[in-house]
Amino acid sequence: MVCHSQDDILNKDRLGAAWSKVQAAQRITLLTHFKPDGDGIAACAALEHLFLQKGKFVETIYPSAPEFAFTRQPKTVYINEHRQHPDLIIICDTANYDRAYYPDAFKGIPLINIDHHVSNSIDGVYNFVAFEWSSTCELLYLILKILAPECIDTTIAELLLYGILYDSQIFQTQATTAQTLTIAAELMHKGADLYALKTELIAHKDPHVIALWGKVLSSVVVTDNEKAVYAVVRQGDLQHYNIHLPALVGFHNFLSHISLVDVSVLFYEMENGNIKCSLRSKRYDVNAVARQFGGGGHKNAAGFISQEPIDTIIKRVVGVLL
Amino acid sequence: MVCHSQDDILNKDRLGAAWSKVQAAQRITLLTHFKPDGDGIAACAALEHLFLQKGKFVETIYPSAPEFAFTRQPKTVYINEHRQHPDLIIICDTANYDRAYYPDAFKGIPLINIDHHVSNSIDGVYNFVAFEWSSTCELLYLILKILAPECIDTTIAELLLYGILYDSQIFQTQATTAQTLTIAAELMHKGADLYALKTELIAHKDPHVIALWGKVLSSVVVTDNEKAVYAVVRQGDLQHYNIHLPALVGFHNFLSHISLVDVSVLFYEMENGNIKCSLRSKRYDVNAVARQFGGGGHKNAAGFISQEPIDTIIKRVVGVLL
Repeated sequence: MVCHSQDDILNKDRLGAAWSKVQAAQRITLLTHFKPDGDGIAACAALEHLFLQKGKFVETIYPSAPEFAFTRQPKTVYINEHRQHPDLIIICDTANYDRAYYPDAFKGIPLINIDHHVSNSIDGVYNFVAFEWSSTCELLYLILKILAPECIDTTIAELLLYGILYDSQIFQTQATTAQTLTIAAELMHKGADLYALKTELIAHKDPHVIALWGKVLSSVVVTDNEKAVYAVVRQGDLQHYNIHLPALVGFHNFLSHISLVDVSVLFYEMENGNIKCSLRSKRYDVNAVARQFGGGGHKNAAGFISQEPIDTIIKRVVGVLL
Repeated sequence: MVCHSQDDILNKDRLGAAWSKVQAAQRITLLTHFKPDGDGIAACAALEHLFLQKGKFVETIYPSAPEFAFTRQPKTVYINEHRQHPDLIIICDTANYDRAYYPDAFKGIPLINIDHHVSNSIDGVYNFVAFEWSSTCELLYLILKILAPECIDTTIAELLLYGILYDSQIFQTQATTAQTLTIAAELMHKGADLYALKTELIAHKDPHVIALWGKVLSSVVVTDNEKAVYAVVRQGDLQHYNIHLPALVGFHNFLSHISLVDVSVLFYEMENGNIKCSLRSKRYDVNAVARQFGGGGHKNAAGFISQEPIDTIIKRVVGVLL
């Protein structure tokens, strides 16, 4: 990625030049990352909506299916395959090529890179990377506000606010700034319904999921030094409640939020018997812990997968934290 | 209350006249409601901070102690008693006189009424009642922005954002508007730290509370028609976990948020053996249900207290909902 100062993200000359590429393109392909999330999907859907209005052929490629049944998909999505040969590619919310569908056939096609990950290593013809911003949709809003403000209709406003709410966990992450709230307010003025969107985002479709959350919360253990809490999700419980992993998305956020201890750990027994361990912290460096077990991540959120028996791995991780 | 159109809430003449009363006053007493909450307390604390800068004598009276151990109290608070004989009273976030400390000695003293409850029936010399707004602190911010913008320092900004976050449940209530978010952004620009405030607000001090939440969530029952979920908090569990009622504040919000069913009901066994039943809904009129049991509230949030045995009352309420 060509490095731009954060002040320079929305440089009008560069935005204008990228916009010329868009206007000249007939077939645009949108990409986002492996296990696409609400921010990446919403960014693609907003761009698709915009480009369809302008009479372009648009398709979106995910490298793998979303883990959630989002209602706000782009209209034309292919999983791990492409149909059209684009003359422009826009990649959203994706830090590197390995996380996207990017076959040899795409090499050499001009690519615009829109993202908010500090680790972004994609070298597009134009790169718009606003790290430490709440979401790719926050960045995309400011880009569209400069390039095509008249095109930000209710549909686009809803999609962008959805993406912002998804990645900011409804304004609860540290990346939520005054700019994030100002943009959200502007999107509401354009017709996005904050209450409806957040309800769509947090409401689980199956009320029986609550019972599983309850079961897992009941199992929460606080370490003797009160530095950490951990919980265990066992396959037996998932099967008992006839529930699959996606139902637990958000659980760890919840666990880390309601506790004042520094570290929270979720041990998850996978279908193949391996144990997925995810760690969150407020101050402690959990990346260092994960690395000891062959994993990694960030200082405040990291994880690893282990083939050891669950009780062994719990004991080892807790041993490190004590 | 003299009724003002909602457009007229921030009428500059009326605000200016009220401000003259404030400037002329030497001793100002601030009031808020029974079981004061984060919005009422923060509003009083912000006004106290402002008036102390201006060299006034200020005290705040709560009719009863807060149920939470808030760190953001005004400096001078008395519970159900007053010390100074004020020449001006300001009552915040309080719908009627019965909910405030308002002894005979206060009658005849000019009173300014700042609130966001639609049911406000207080007839102050000046009334600023913005019903359907997220919070009294949202209104208070706009008032101060007109009257004394230079006085909104970091302390006041933090207090007002705290009150807004408290009453809007961190931007999750239906009363959260674009105005709410814009104001929150302005308060952040004035130094309020959204992330720190929301963490202070939602973090429980006792990690063992999580286990109780888990126990209660495990007990969640979905009615046969999938219209409602209910959960029961029993005294035995509270005693087992050595936990008191305040630890469960927020639980019902959580329950109603993670479920897509229309109605959620929490049955809470009180220390005296009575059952407190609280109902929340997205569409259904739960006020009508509560009224059948001698209680009341609003269409989407209502409750009652019953002396019947818990299993009887559960059966009766579920019978109405089916």
